[in-house]
Amino acid sequence: MRKVVKNSPIPIYAQLQDIITEMIENDELQPHDPIPTEHEFCQIQQISRMTVRTAIMTLVNEGILYREQGKGTFVADKKPKYQLSGLKGLTEGMEELGYCVETKILSFQLVPCSKVESSIIGLADGQKAIEVKRLRIVDGEPYAIETVLLHPAQCPNLTRNLIENTSLYDVLRHQYGLIPHYSKQIVEPVRLNTFEKNTFHLANDSLGLLFKRTTYTKEDKVIEFTKSVYRIDKHKFEMVLKM
Amino acid sequence: MRKVVKNSPIPIYAQLQDIITEMIENDELQPHDPIPTEHEFCQIQQISRMTVRTAIMTLVNEGILYREQGKGTFVADKKPKYQLSGLKGLTEGMEELGYCVETKILSFQLVPCSKVESSIIGLADGQKAIEVKRLRIVDGEPYAIETVLLHPAQCPNLTRNLIENTSLYDVLRHQYGLIPHYSKQIVEPVRLNTFEKNTFHLANDSLGLLFKRTTYTKEDKVIEFTKSVYRIDKHKFEMVLKM
Repeated sequence: MRKVVKNSPIPIYAQLQDIITEMIENDELQPHDPIPTEHEFCQIQQISRMTVRTAIMTLVNEGILYREQGKGTFVADKKPKYQLSGLKGLTEGMEELGYCVETKILSFQLVPCSKVESSIIGLADGQKAIEVKRLRIVDGEPYAIETVLLHPAQCPNLTRNLIENTSLYDVLRHQYGLIPHYSKQIVEPVRLNTFEKNTFHLANDSLGLLFKRTTYTKEDKVIEFTKSVYRIDKHKFEMVLKM
Repeated sequence: MRKVVKNSPIPIYAQLQDIITEMIENDELQPHDPIPTEHEFCQIQQISRMTVRTAIMTLVNEGILYREQGKGTFVADKKPKYQLSGLKGLTEGMEELGYCVETKILSFQLVPCSKVESSIIGLADGQKAIEVKRLRIVDGEPYAIETVLLHPAQCPNLTRNLIENTSLYDVLRHQYGLIPHYSKQIVEPVRLNTFEKNTFHLANDSLGLLFKRTTYTKEDKVIEFTKSVYRIDKHKFEMVLKM
């Protein structure tokens, strides 16, 4: 095990995180191996228990390690990658990777929007949007919480049932002729709020990724504006960028 | 001002964050406007001072608001977007947007790598990589900390001077014929460590985005592996995805 450098500008706990991550990358520690105990890390690195705990808890929150009550801390399975390269809904993207994707609709209602959101989806002053909140479930585990905003005139008679357990893109494509051609996504890091943490069964202080996506037709008409909060402990998010 | 909902699963501070963000999106609050005082928020929303502070501090950390000692809390300038759609180095991407980009090399050395990193850039067992740590500065402000790993055989005689104040891609392209064709980037949310926070002059507990990028030639040869930590309080990160 590489030793921490005491007079580095990089804090000791961050160095220890790097060292543990390297041991996993180097296959010195394999998935489901127990990691050294806190006491062993303190002895080997000559650092405080608090520092060791901070490093380990951060890696647990990131899904690199996991804890089992009374048994210790172990190396988690490697995270599969979720490619953001093409324009696909989560369902299509994950199903191509061989995952079983389910969707649970949390709410379906008409809501007033902020001015910015209204202008994105093209609502008139005071007009309400169709808001669909969905929980995306991959291989039985809650994976993302999505809030989709749609213009009601673009998808008349859309009901909750129509989009239950199916790809929203499919419905928009086949029922309403809204064919997605490109999307713009803004990505931000977020601290999960209580509702999100409880939904994902994650510890306090967990981080997530927030994607704000606007999807357009070939004619640059906006189809949807979606905010999605993803957990990051199960999958990696990869983008392929071309010249 | 919209009121918080007390019996919602969404915590009150997160609701207050949304309300303040909406007021900014709706132009009820403009850049450099003072926001209501903590006391006013407590009165209007009938919530505790701690809850108000948590909401405001989070927005300050995210760069939505800023504080001035003894004066109060104000709305920050809107964040410009940095497009991740094409394969461009930061220099080219930001200069196209009209920014002045400078680069300060923090270190240039041969380093041993982890097994995963060695296998990505194609090092033999025990072979060292060229590691370049750079601080990217946009319009005079530290913006990103990059750690680039290069295979020494692919860029012989590369020196610190050669890449000072220039685009690394330009040097690789023109001096070594390494022409980037596509890259794969993994994006992760991170808590900034002490070195990163100090470099960016940010408060404790600030978040950032970590991009791990592998760049390839047309022939799928790896040119570089780069880890970049970006601050998120100044710019938005946008991707354009196509069918």
